Amino acid sequence: MNFSIIKRTLGWILLFEAVFFLVPMITAAIYWEEEFFAFMITMLVCGVFGGFCLIGKPKNTNIYAKEGCVIVALSWIVMSLFGALPLFFSGVDAYSNYVDALFEIVSGFTTTGATIVPTGAQVAALPKCILMWRSFSHWVGGMGVLVFIMAFLPLSGARNLYIMKAESPGPEVSKLVPRVRKTALILYVIYTGMTVVEFVMLLCGGMSIFEAINASFATAGTGGFSVKADGFLGYSSYLQIVVTVFMLLFSMNFTSYYLIGKGKFKDAFNAEIRAFLWIVLAAITLVTLNLHFTQSQVLSGGAALKHSAFSVASVISTTGFATVDFAEWPAFAQTVLVVIMFIGACAGSTGGGIKVSRVVIMGKGAYHEVGRMLHPKLVKKITMDKQVVSHEVVRSVTAFFMAYVLIFVVSLLLISLDGMDTTTNFTAVAATINNIGPGLGRVSPAGSFADFSGWSKIVFIFDMLVGRLEVFPMLVLFAPKTWKKGA
Amino acid sequence: MNFSIIKRTLGWILLFEAVFFLVPMITAAIYWEEEFFAFMITMLVCGVFGGFCLIGKPKNTNIYAKEGCVIVALSWIVMSLFGALPLFFSGVDAYSNYVDALFEIVSGFTTTGATIVPTGAQVAALPKCILMWRSFSHWVGGMGVLVFIMAFLPLSGARNLYIMKAESPGPEVSKLVPRVRKTALILYVIYTGMTVVEFVMLLCGGMSIFEAINASFATAGTGGFSVKADGFLGYSSYLQIVVTVFMLLFSMNFTSYYLIGKGKFKDAFNAEIRAFLWIVLAAITLVTLNLHFTQSQVLSGGAALKHSAFSVASVISTTGFATVDFAEWPAFAQTVLVVIMFIGACAGSTGGGIKVSRVVIMGKGAYHEVGRMLHPKLVKKITMDKQVVSHEVVRSVTAFFMAYVLIFVVSLLLISLDGMDTTTNFTAVAATINNIGPGLGRVSPAGSFADFSGWSKIVFIFDMLVGRLEVFPMLVLFAPKTWKKGA
Repeated sequence: MNFSIIKRTLGWILLFEAVFFLVPMITAAIYWEEEFFAFMITMLVCGVFGGFCLIGKPKNTNIYAKEGCVIVALSWIVMSLFGALPLFFSGVDAYSNYVDALFEIVSGFTTTGATIVPTGAQVAALPKCILMWRSFSHWVGGMGVLVFIMAFLPLSGARNLYIMKAESPGPEVSKLVPRVRKTALILYVIYTGMTVVEFVMLLCGGMSIFEAINASFATAGTGGFSVKADGFLGYSSYLQIVVTVFMLLFSMNFTSYYLIGKGKFKDAFNAEIRAFLWIVLAAITLVTLNLHFTQSQVLSGGAALKHSAFSVASVISTTGFATVDFAEWPAFAQTVLVVIMFIGACAGSTGGGIKVSRVVIMGKGAYHEVGRMLHPKLVKKITMDKQVVSHEVVRSVTAFFMAYVLIFVVSLLLISLDGMDTTTNFTAVAATINNIGPGLGRVSPAGSFADFSGWSKIVFIFDMLVGRLEVFPMLVLFAPKTWKKGA
Repeated sequence: MNFSIIKRTLGWILLFEAVFFLVPMITAAIYWEEEFFAFMITMLVCGVFGGFCLIGKPKNTNIYAKEGCVIVALSWIVMSLFGALPLFFSGVDAYSNYVDALFEIVSGFTTTGATIVPTGAQVAALPKCILMWRSFSHWVGGMGVLVFIMAFLPLSGARNLYIMKAESPGPEVSKLVPRVRKTALILYVIYTGMTVVEFVMLLCGGMSIFEAINASFATAGTGGFSVKADGFLGYSSYLQIVVTVFMLLFSMNFTSYYLIGKGKFKDAFNAEIRAFLWIVLAAITLVTLNLHFTQSQVLSGGAALKHSAFSVASVISTTGFATVDFAEWPAFAQTVLVVIMFIGACAGSTGGGIKVSRVVIMGKGAYHEVGRMLHPKLVKKITMDKQVVSHEVVRSVTAFFMAYVLIFVVSLLLISLDGMDTTTNFTAVAATINNIGPGLGRVSPAGSFADFSGWSKIVFIFDMLVGRLEVFPMLVLFAPKTWKKGA
């Protein structure tokens, strides 16, 4: 294990995080909020620690798969531990316990958007700089902080791909251009560009600058923290539709946008994006019909379509915004939402969940097995976009799924000790491990995670990180083998 | 597709089923019940149809993988369609709808044990011959009716293994002896022997002959239909403990009993059985502790241990007997039960669920993937009992799991249209696809499946068959490719 390079990368993470604190500090300055000092102190601590980690040059700058995983997992943990400090120092009641503050900021960085603040009214009453820090953490976490750093720093030679693999969502990483650093830069340019476009469109709809910035950050990262008591209910249909569209745009593979920019439209609409769009269409249709047949007295057809499109986009993109409390919807619509909770967004996007490409690969595997029952000697390979999916990828997809189920089950067992009802427990784990935010029952859009015990919150923090980093980096961190000498 | 051999096998199935009807007919004769005639008429119909199917000799007696799947799937469907007739003809209120009668007997043959009869009191009031037919269907379905026929008939040459593969639970079939027919015979001898031992032990505990026969049939098949209003609550601790032990015995691989008979103790305690016993032990400990800490005022330590051992054995063996309504237990204990619902019994037993060996193989796959993150170039094979698990088996296990999840999700969506609560819906699908019987919520041991719509019942019927035949034979039946000419 190359400890010196790990220490060095953590140093850079802390220095960058110190710079990130400028965003809420500027907000605090504008609104004359005293929480300015909470951020300033953390910034100093962060900078000093970061500086210490950067002292001395590592002899060996090699990063292998193992170091890649450990660097990514540790970076996210350290970033969260420091990111929670300003919330904890702020004196806000809901964050008076450090674990609660940590839950909130992990929920931010992992773009989960589940909040520990008990009610919407209390969220709306938070200092503006804290609201900004929550939203900004979505934006930073969405595309990945290490990818960000890579775009600007010559981290450690040619081996950065391992870091990118460990931090980027999806079974495979597609390099847009041969150099990892340039790929990271292109991704961030697209990401920033789309965020700006959304911001402008929201402004045009009459949103205030502050709200538009926050909503754009939260949509771009498919996060879901809201700055208003009633979420997106109070906004105009125009604003709701803009956000619906952008939630979907940010949950599609960013590589496709690059390809569209290059004029390669056919390559851009790859198998995963086509599957994603079909699933979205089917889910919206089913939910709309279900609402229409059961709630036609309270909802017009148009409103049913609008709310179901918003909710489906919000859940499958794993953003977690709400225009309605879908925990009040009929059982069928709720079940549809729970199913797409697990499917999640496309690989290479900012969304969470299992990812559409994994679901497609697994579905094809099952389909091929039926064929094999008919003709046992026929060997067919799984293909996607006319290319054979390598055996390695299939194996890693199934292993991912198994580890995911295992962590899900153990988490469910641990948090069920709190004695909440089954629906709350099940969807609370689903909403955190898939980085969505709200679930059903007591963690519905109208509820919060405040009532769970401290232990359960730690389980959720772990699950959110597992979800964002896609299981293995976190497992590697806890594998005794990783830390063995000479390994 | 070799249609003539399929027709011929179905003919034998019907003739055998006609003979099976003797069991409830004798019961009806003993108790002077008029439902005798419902069974007699069905017996005649069954015999005539069976006879017709046997007319003419097939030119070609080859059975390949495809025919094996189709034969098994069709046999189970046809057997159920006829098996439901006496219930339908009986004039019992709960079976006045044919779909309800079909649900009940599919629940019997697949050893699910979920009942359509609304209350325990109504179950206890059923005619004795019907109770006997329900229990006997468990016994027949447990080890497999085609395996039974194979043991006594020279079906079609050497290719029977495909049938056995399709009907027997688990990822692989281990032939005890080179000849399939003799293997089938040995399995049935062990099965019958263990059933008789249980019967005698229950008699010794003071159970009536009728109850002891029914309980033995239902335990042996890991079915779960009960003949008393309060299930196993009213029996003595001795009887409850005997049943607990036999539920566990019948959910272990029967090959192991053969090996024990041969004196090969070490081989008998293979990796799957060891894993199964560890899981059982862990589950009992966790549930007992949870009950002890939350319900110590109403339950003594001994009673908590007894009830949790019974419930854990009942659920993991997928029997579904109950001494208590575990839907009233605390959330943690319920979650443990739901988890072991999915794990299920060992391969090659009469129990359902995903099967311990599949869970072990999948768990090892995930574990190896963590190792691969550390050393990408290291190739390690998954082993069980010191033998490499072939790539074929690993692939079929993961494909099984994917197809299983897919069917689970689609079923959940379909039945959620009935508008029941999430817990009921989720555990109802889990209890049928895993062939357990009761779930939580409205399908708890104190409830029934009566309130679901006809459509949902058809979904459950499909799920029970999918669970018993382990997914692929049912899927092959519905694959258009299967029925293509010249395929």
